[in-house]
Amino acid sequence: MSSILAVGTVAYDSVETPFGQADEVLGGSVTYFSVAASFFTGVSLVGCVGQDFRKKDQETLEARNIDLKGLQHIQGETFRWKGKYGDDLNDALTLETHLNVLEGFRPNVPSSYRSSEYVFLGNISPVLQRKVLAQIHQPRLIVCDTMNYWISGDFESLLETLSHVDILLVNDAEARQLTQEYNLVKAARKVHAWGPHTLVIKRGEHGVLMLQNQSGRPEESGQVAGRVMKNKPVAGMSVFSAPAYPLENILDPTGAGDSFAGGFVGHLAGINRLDFSAICQAIIFGSVMASFNVESFSLDRLKELDYSEIELRYREFREMMSFDKI
Amino acid sequence: MSSILAVGTVAYDSVETPFGQADEVLGGSVTYFSVAASFFTGVSLVGCVGQDFRKKDQETLEARNIDLKGLQHIQGETFRWKGKYGDDLNDALTLETHLNVLEGFRPNVPSSYRSSEYVFLGNISPVLQRKVLAQIHQPRLIVCDTMNYWISGDFESLLETLSHVDILLVNDAEARQLTQEYNLVKAARKVHAWGPHTLVIKRGEHGVLMLQNQSGRPEESGQVAGRVMKNKPVAGMSVFSAPAYPLENILDPTGAGDSFAGGFVGHLAGINRLDFSAICQAIIFGSVMASFNVESFSLDRLKELDYSEIELRYREFREMMSFDKI
Repeated sequence: MSSILAVGTVAYDSVETPFGQADEVLGGSVTYFSVAASFFTGVSLVGCVGQDFRKKDQETLEARNIDLKGLQHIQGETFRWKGKYGDDLNDALTLETHLNVLEGFRPNVPSSYRSSEYVFLGNISPVLQRKVLAQIHQPRLIVCDTMNYWISGDFESLLETLSHVDILLVNDAEARQLTQEYNLVKAARKVHAWGPHTLVIKRGEHGVLMLQNQSGRPEESGQVAGRVMKNKPVAGMSVFSAPAYPLENILDPTGAGDSFAGGFVGHLAGINRLDFSAICQAIIFGSVMASFNVESFSLDRLKELDYSEIELRYREFREMMSFDKI
Repeated sequence: MSSILAVGTVAYDSVETPFGQADEVLGGSVTYFSVAASFFTGVSLVGCVGQDFRKKDQETLEARNIDLKGLQHIQGETFRWKGKYGDDLNDALTLETHLNVLEGFRPNVPSSYRSSEYVFLGNISPVLQRKVLAQIHQPRLIVCDTMNYWISGDFESLLETLSHVDILLVNDAEARQLTQEYNLVKAARKVHAWGPHTLVIKRGEHGVLMLQNQSGRPEESGQVAGRVMKNKPVAGMSVFSAPAYPLENILDPTGAGDSFAGGFVGHLAGINRLDFSAICQAIIFGSVMASFNVESFSLDRLKELDYSEIELRYREFREMMSFDKI
């Protein structure tokens, strides 16, 4: 079992969905990621909060044994996000963003974190993502998330970050915007050429598509053993596809992508394997964590989760995707 | 092996996609359906064409051993559809529709067809769908497709047809419009209450979702044996989800839904089984046929297809959806 270093935002969110609302609740990319990943392995968090960060929220993270040595407490207010979802729950309308303490955030990786083998670069500026990477000795796996803001505003810097990344996690709109390709297979070819050997596309209610370059990561060949498909649907790639868990009641999709990332990287670090099979399993664990997260506002569902529930839902995914041989 | 009675449109289509165009080519719901299904079992077609129906198109259908006794040749011109697709290829923009001979079409089911056990009601008016049903002795399975035109224009009549239907095949927009429910699990509950014990939702590039009422079809219990999931994601339902085949080059999505239906009903009739497992397999065969169909305009790809290619792609689907137990 290896532990994970994760960097991203800690936030107070105010969210409105067709099914209710929550004000000033704990959120942020590294928060959702860390709590989800903590069911699989140890997590060392890098981020920042303001003086208004509540003791009970600190305790929520501590209760999951998340290492908070890298959580900087800075003069000022914690990052705030306010958003609203319509019926389709796939896209949030951002109403307000207040960077607050994030504005001057300079990630400082504690020395005890620096030998982390698994790294998750949550959604922050590509420059900060590289500053974190520069402080880590020899990571075995680097997983990166990003968003439209950096794709349109800091494209060259993002490409520089991607050249160090093994697995890129984005949603379908981001994959298309990043590559200027509508077809996701073509999009994956471009991403592979930039560095990441694996592209994981999160499609909300439509599940997840993973496209892996079969030649793997050139400079570390052998480390990532792609399963060569006997009959490959796409030349030169291994492909895996998972559905979303069909939920009748989704309260709040905020944090679904980061919870997915937490289950995904959490499983890989937990079993310390990077072969194709492990990555497929990790996608299911990611989908499981995302499906729990959207069942309530903030981290309410993840906080009270039991590992046996995760295992049960993993098996439900298996059943939902099985069919007989011919 | 049982044969299928299929009713729907035969058309001459003019189609423009970002990748090319085709003018006045063979199309129509029952045409795509029948050619796709003909790889699995015998098909008896019910439909109509005008005097302009080309001999080579008749021969295309004959070459697949489709029984054309129910294809009426009527004074006038064959139904015409003209449409255009944008980049996302999910929705066609209809530019022109000329009903022509369809306007006066009264389906007449030849006596040799009347003992068909498998029935596909392609996309025509719900009244005509019932007229076909009334002429069939004792079908074992009735599968129905419909579209927004009938949902908004003839809702009550459509509900009357649905009360006779076992499996409803629609796309996600149609499922939502029909039930006025955004959540597809809730949509399925409504559809189940109307009659169909199984709802198959076609989601284009996002694959297929199937939701089956576990109590089956009340009036014929035992005939459709729903597999009871050990761990059911949705109370009272069995769920199966399949991805779309990731294609790098899609030339023309016209007929994808009907090709799906052809592979789907074709497999069920071919093995003459209706259990949950058979329906899951059928969804994969449907997805396989749709994936071939979109690789070219009109029926060009389906016409030249070999059954070994179908089997190969079926196995590719299996591989793309497999992951290890934990």
